[in-house]
Parts: sequence; structure tokens; C-alpha cells
Amino acid sequence: MKKIVLLRHGESLWNKENRFTGWTDVDLSDKGVEEGYEAGNLLKEAGISFQMAYASYLKRAVKTLNCVLDRMNADWIPVFKSWRLNEKHYGALQGLNKSETAARYGNEQVHIWRRSYDVAPMPLKDSDPESPINDVRYSHVPLCDLPRTESLKDAIMRVIPYWECEIFPRLTVVDNILVVAHGNSLRGIVKYLKGISDTDIANLNIPTAMPYVFEFDESLNFVRDYYLGDPEKIKQMQDAVANQGIAKK
Amino acid sequence: MKKIVLLRHGESLWNKENRFTGWTDVDLSDKGVEEGYEAGNLLKEAGISFQMAYASYLKRAVKTLNCVLDRMNADWIPVFKSWRLNEKHYGALQGLNKSETAARYGNEQVHIWRRSYDVAPMPLKDSDPESPINDVRYSHVPLCDLPRTESLKDAIMRVIPYWECEIFPRLTVVDNILVVAHGNSLRGIVKYLKGISDTDIANLNIPTAMPYVFEFDESLNFVRDYYLGDPEKIKQMQDAVANQGIAKK
Repeated sequence: MKKIVLLRHGESLWNKENRFTGWTDVDLSDKGVEEGYEAGNLLKEAGISFQMAYASYLKRAVKTLNCVLDRMNADWIPVFKSWRLNEKHYGALQGLNKSETAARYGNEQVHIWRRSYDVAPMPLKDSDPESPINDVRYSHVPLCDLPRTESLKDAIMRVIPYWECEIFPRLTVVDNILVVAHGNSLRGIVKYLKGISDTDIANLNIPTAMPYVFEFDESLNFVRDYYLGDPEKIKQMQDAVANQGIAKK
Repeated sequence: MKKIVLLRHGESLWNKENRFTGWTDVDLSDKGVEEGYEAGNLLKEAGISFQMAYASYLKRAVKTLNCVLDRMNADWIPVFKSWRLNEKHYGALQGLNKSETAARYGNEQVHIWRRSYDVAPMPLKDSDPESPINDVRYSHVPLCDLPRTESLKDAIMRVIPYWECEIFPRLTVVDNILVVAHGNSLRGIVKYLKGISDTDIANLNIPTAMPYVFEFDESLNFVRDYYLGDPEKIKQMQDAVANQGIAKK
């Protein structure tokens, strides 16, 4: 079986502080680094070896990937990075605490911003120094393609072309590919692969740094998907993700 | 001025143990990791930002590069890895202690193996599990191109095509490029760029993790070269490299 393994980056400093991160280039926490190495251990124990890997343009994904490859002694494999694998852009919410935002706008509104399919938060202004249009790393991307905010639908619209034109076709020539990205960019890929409805995708939560394996047969038909690691721990982590946007009592 | 910065990886576990390393994929020591971050600081302070970077296939180079890019918040830039930037292959000497080898074969012989231009150590056998022909990472390289041992001349013969066809031409479209490699693969590039003779190259020593800047004008003519960092420290490090192959009294 050929495999594409999806991996959400380890805990970032803002996951820890429960802030909306989006395209803000926040570093991994010490725990996040440890999670990256642990993911490498799980993949090594599973006997999977990768011929190539992908990451977003964001430090927390690239560094998680570096930890995984280091642990697998696969530092040498080709790595490709793309802005199209970035997290959903959270617009003007970026930097705000999720619980505080919920206390201010209500749990319901924050749940909509976090989990609705096609509602995007308020956009970031082009004059904002944090806008991608002011960041040299995106200077090769047409301005009209650069988000000021995104719904999950918007994020999927720019992730899937990269999946379809770049990542997936590589399976014709290699056996195993690793993709390290973000909660929402990976939810988009999983939605696409498993045909999850626009409604049901709201209930899909991807835990940090647990390798999520998709297997394909020789004709590249999707066969099955499963996580590596302790199922009980994965369930707990998924529940924790689901509860991040609830105002603290 | 356009710039290509050459960087020798930080201290490896075998630099520390004074063993011949060559293509053995030895990890960085803690000090080596620290040196990588320090090189990132020096480059950041110098105001240089890179558009792309290169590393060898060896962990100590890739991880040094990762540290540098992390410190410069440039984790996202494209990185290309090539076996052609690997250290000189030390043949059957790989794994042996440099001082002990000198005690056994004589300082003179070890100096010849380390610093002569065209004398290679005894080759590694193809049946040796450490031979590159048994390592999946080199499976795309024609067997006749894979070294069993190398003189500096042999190493230069496979480094320079990559410099000429891949690295240097990129300066036509970008301003600054970082190349993280090894003592001997970098000596080869410096010899080529500065027209150093086959004899004089024996006296060129490159310290670990000190950024070595080569500047080129708009027509890509070589203008000048200099190290970043404390000149006194660089001198001490170069002397230390020169003395590694001397038998301990």
C-alpha cells in the first residue's frame, strides 16, 4: 500500500495560550518540539520511510517536520514548502485569545468562526504589518490569491489545487509521502479525500502531532485511514481541540 | 552586492571525538547545535536575508542549516539537498580516531590523507554496510559516480558541477544564497572561486559554523570574501582544524 501521512504541527506557543494563530508565524513550544520527535518515533516504529515531504510556510510546521525527519534519520529527503498548506487565515482574529473572544462575541459566534464551512472572520487590513501582502515570503503569490481572511471553504479552495497538482500525483513515483501542516488545511484535505459533507466537517478535529495515515492501492484508490498512536490519547486530544473556543466559566 | 555564504556545519559528535567522519551520518553535538544558532545570529546581525539554501545529504549539515534558518525566521525558504555537497569520502578511515591513526601510520601519512590534493585513503569495500552503494539515499546516483574513497581532487570533481550548474547560476535571479556543507567540500569551492593552487589548498582550513561570505557584482564577477564573526576566534578555530591530525604526545 502507498501512504500519505498527514501530520498537524506540535503545540505552538499560541496553542498553549489559546490564541487564534492563522498565518501568524508562531514558534513551537518545548512540548511541541517533543511532540514532533514523538511523531518521528511512532512513524519509525510503524516501519514507514518517506521519499519526500511537504510543509507549509509556517515555522511551526517546518520545525515539526525537521524533528520528525531527524528522529527517522531522514533529514536528507527532499522537502517542499508551500503557502497553500498554511493554516486557515483568521483575519482580524489573529492574536486574540479564543476564550476571551468567546466571552466577548459569544460561544456561538466563535464556534461559527472556527467551525462553519463558509463564514470568514473580519478581514485583516492591507495596511496591517501582519498582512501577508506585506510579507516578503509571499511576494511571489499574486495579490489577488493572498487571503485577508478565510473561511474553511476559502482555505480548501487554495489547498486542494496543491494537493491535486503537486502532492498526490507524486504517489505515482514514490511510495510514502509526509505532509506537515495545520488543523484546518489538513481538515480540508481529509474532507476532500473522505467526501465529508460541508456540515459534518465541523465535527472533525485533528490532534497535534499524531500521524494520520491514508493508504492507497496501486491504482491510487483510497483504501483506508487510521491514526498511529494510542487511540485513547487521540480521542482526548480531539475533544480538547473541539473545546478550545468555549468561554471559560 | 550579491552574496553566497558558505557555512561549515557545527561540531559533530565525531569532530568532538576527533574521528574521521566523511560520509558517516553523524549527528551534531550540543555545542554544534549552539554553533548553528550562533551562525544564524551573526547572519541576522549582518542584515543578510537568503532567498534559498543548499545542504549536503548529511544530518550535521541539514541540522546546522535548520538552526540558522530558525534563528533568522527563514524556515520557509526553499532548501535543496545534494549528495554532491557531502564531505570528502574518507574510505576505510571512516570511524577511526585521527590521533590514533597518526600514531599508527605516522603524522606524515595522516597529513597526506587529510591534506594532499590527489591521494585518497584506502577504499571502503562494496560489501561494507557503510558503503554508499548500500544506502537508499544514494539509490538515484549512478553506481560509478558513488565514491568508495576520495582524494580532495575527487571530491572537487563532484562538487564543482553542482556549483556550476545549480548553485551559482541561481545568483542571476536571487541576491543571497546559503550553502551549508563540510570542511572539504567547501575547501573545494573556495579553491575553485579563488584559484588556489593544488599545493596551497593544503593550508586552507575552514572553521565550523563561521559564515564565510563571497560577494559578486551585478555581472557575477567575484569581488571579495570575508568571514563574519570575531577574527581572533576564527584564527584559533582554523589552527585547531590544522592540528587535528597530529598524534598526541
